[in-house]
Amino acid sequence: MVAVSPLAPKRLPDMPAVAGVKLATAEAGIRYRGRTDVLLAAFGKGTTVAGVFTRSRCPSAPVEWCRARLGGGVARALVVNSGNANAFTGKNGREATKMTAAFAAKALGCRPNEVFLASTGVIGEPLEAGKFAAVMDQLVDRAEPTVWLDAAKAIMTTDTFAKVATATATLGSATVTINGIAKGAGMIAPDMATLLAFVFTDAPIAAGALQALISRGVEDTFNAVTIDSDTSTSDTLLAFATGAAAAHGAPRIARAGDRRLKNFRGALDTVLASLSEQIARDGEGARKLVEVVVEGAVSKRSARRIALSIANSPLVKTAIAGEDANWGRVVMAVGKAGEPADRDRLAIWFGDIRVAHKGARDPGYDEAAVSALMKQSEITVKVALGLGSGRDRVLTCDLTKEYVAINGDYRS
Amino acid sequence: MVAVSPLAPKRLPDMPAVAGVKLATAEAGIRYRGRTDVLLAAFGKGTTVAGVFTRSRCPSAPVEWCRARLGGGVARALVVNSGNANAFTGKNGREATKMTAAFAAKALGCRPNEVFLASTGVIGEPLEAGKFAAVMDQLVDRAEPTVWLDAAKAIMTTDTFAKVATATATLGSATVTINGIAKGAGMIAPDMATLLAFVFTDAPIAAGALQALISRGVEDTFNAVTIDSDTSTSDTLLAFATGAAAAHGAPRIARAGDRRLKNFRGALDTVLASLSEQIARDGEGARKLVEVVVEGAVSKRSARRIALSIANSPLVKTAIAGEDANWGRVVMAVGKAGEPADRDRLAIWFGDIRVAHKGARDPGYDEAAVSALMKQSEITVKVALGLGSGRDRVLTCDLTKEYVAINGDYRS
Repeated sequence: MVAVSPLAPKRLPDMPAVAGVKLATAEAGIRYRGRTDVLLAAFGKGTTVAGVFTRSRCPSAPVEWCRARLGGGVARALVVNSGNANAFTGKNGREATKMTAAFAAKALGCRPNEVFLASTGVIGEPLEAGKFAAVMDQLVDRAEPTVWLDAAKAIMTTDTFAKVATATATLGSATVTINGIAKGAGMIAPDMATLLAFVFTDAPIAAGALQALISRGVEDTFNAVTIDSDTSTSDTLLAFATGAAAAHGAPRIARAGDRRLKNFRGALDTVLASLSEQIARDGEGARKLVEVVVEGAVSKRSARRIALSIANSPLVKTAIAGEDANWGRVVMAVGKAGEPADRDRLAIWFGDIRVAHKGARDPGYDEAAVSALMKQSEITVKVALGLGSGRDRVLTCDLTKEYVAINGDYRS
Repeated sequence: MVAVSPLAPKRLPDMPAVAGVKLATAEAGIRYRGRTDVLLAAFGKGTTVAGVFTRSRCPSAPVEWCRARLGGGVARALVVNSGNANAFTGKNGREATKMTAAFAAKALGCRPNEVFLASTGVIGEPLEAGKFAAVMDQLVDRAEPTVWLDAAKAIMTTDTFAKVATATATLGSATVTINGIAKGAGMIAPDMATLLAFVFTDAPIAAGALQALISRGVEDTFNAVTIDSDTSTSDTLLAFATGAAAAHGAPRIARAGDRRLKNFRGALDTVLASLSEQIARDGEGARKLVEVVVEGAVSKRSARRIALSIANSPLVKTAIAGEDANWGRVVMAVGKAGEPADRDRLAIWFGDIRVAHKGARDPGYDEAAVSALMKQSEITVKVALGLGSGRDRVLTCDLTKEYVAINGDYRS
């Protein structure tokens, strides 16, 4: 048994209903016993959908299914299972997605093309879609609006805590709700490797506008989190907008550039940021949440690359696990990023303590203060390059022996 | 104490003299006590030099020193120290290189610009160059032609074994010798992060030709080895050609394209391949040597990128440490490389056992045979993409809890 991550949020938010969304979970027996492993989210008519997916050249069957159906822009259901990723499963995998969508469409009275799918769990094992048929009717019958925590639990694999977030926004004269659930980049035996996130709102937003909002929203949230530089075959973020708030005066939004979206956009970013931070907090074996800030780069893009080089460096991550403010390894990671950097202008901070300045150790820094800082569970590493105004921020976690144990010892 | 890597070569080669090269080591007390930490190699007149260096944007002071002096093409001495990398040391670092070269030049009666330098050890600590002055005269007095193993030992930091290689080649009517020594990518507290390799030959080869030979030679040897994807600020490979074999009939070679170099080129590649493989065998915490072969890619360059993506994947490396033929993680690593790949054409082998074929698990493979294979200390992972004729090979090692302990626990 893996204990709950010490970085888990101290309390869960109360998750309100989102008008037009009903949820249910069940035990389909995909792989696990004695826990739920399938989630159905059913949506009212007129629900729009948008999504972003793994950049893997070897994506899972459900990712291909969703990509092919996003163009339609409408959704009536989402079916997610844990225990089997339906990835690298060939023709069988494509059949399984088709069958699952057909079961859900029949039970809900919609078209299969309006059913979206995601799977997480082992790679390379055939997914027995028949198991969904056995539970689909009860899922539809039992679906109700407020079981968000149950929903987040059903999609977990090796996550140590359920990940939920919620926010409200003003849209015209109405208050709309945005709820999100996610599962983490916990990757374990064999190949439970997937980041899944689902966002639900009652705001009436056209599919194209929703797509633009989330494509932009993930850039500084989900795309700025790294656990170990590995990319799943199944990463999926889907957003659903039921439009139910139109009944309470929310204006129908056709374009992402609509100025009335300002408040909504902020609330959406809050939900995405919360879910993605929770994923870093549940990185395998993580004992410390690490924020890497790079400023003074030639561009934001350059700052992102340098920040990822630091956040993905095994030597930086093991040093932080060892509570050592090892700025030499940070220099190394800056140097290998391949981005413009001038060694003799570089400054490095751990927390608010500057440890290196103008290409050498900062003569003024207090070893005892840095040692105390490194014992904290949240560490910020900041690098100033002194070249321009490019700035970015990435979240990661430390690299511990538990990571290796989780990913290497599972057979013993 | 770290035990010798279980992957260390079973026996050391006899290292012959290289005419025109004399070696000596000493205890300068840079950082360690009770062991040698400085190496002097003195060369006869007319020795040519070539080098390749880290691509880090934040290189060490000795790397900058050598780069600036390679253009001269002549060398009379090499001074290497362990214990301090003289990296990220600002103005002090530049002064230290200047002083060290001056001490050696005075003791040998040559010009400082003919002295090449390399340092490995902690980053960010000032290097006290005065310590070299105290031992320089005894180094010059004691230098002799055959202490290659002593030389390899003096440049070790956390290496668990000394790395030497030798080969002979026919050049014209003469037999020439190529010797090499290296230290590994063992990186440890705090920041002993450097790959150093030095190659010595008595062949009479012009500096430009020597440069072309080693630039090409490292591509499939040193540049095809990865321990943990981190790149040192100090990586250095220098080659010295004394030309002494001209006295025995070796022709003077002006161009790398000279057809008389064919045999020499093969011998040089053998030495580079041996040294770089020894570095993978001494990766921190390594228990398994891993060869990653990618074939059927659209180009060799694409195959290299995919091979590095696999070889650097923490999930692949931990699975191998756990002796699991986890081909799902190999698919993941192929997918994230960003290179052309068609999931449904992919085949994967561990050793000679095909575990995946045409985008799905190979129905024919024998679990027991694969389990037995994964217990071996040398594992080959092969991926066939089925797209073209691009092929490449990379060496790495597994990722164990010992790696994290070495790099994270050093304070305890």
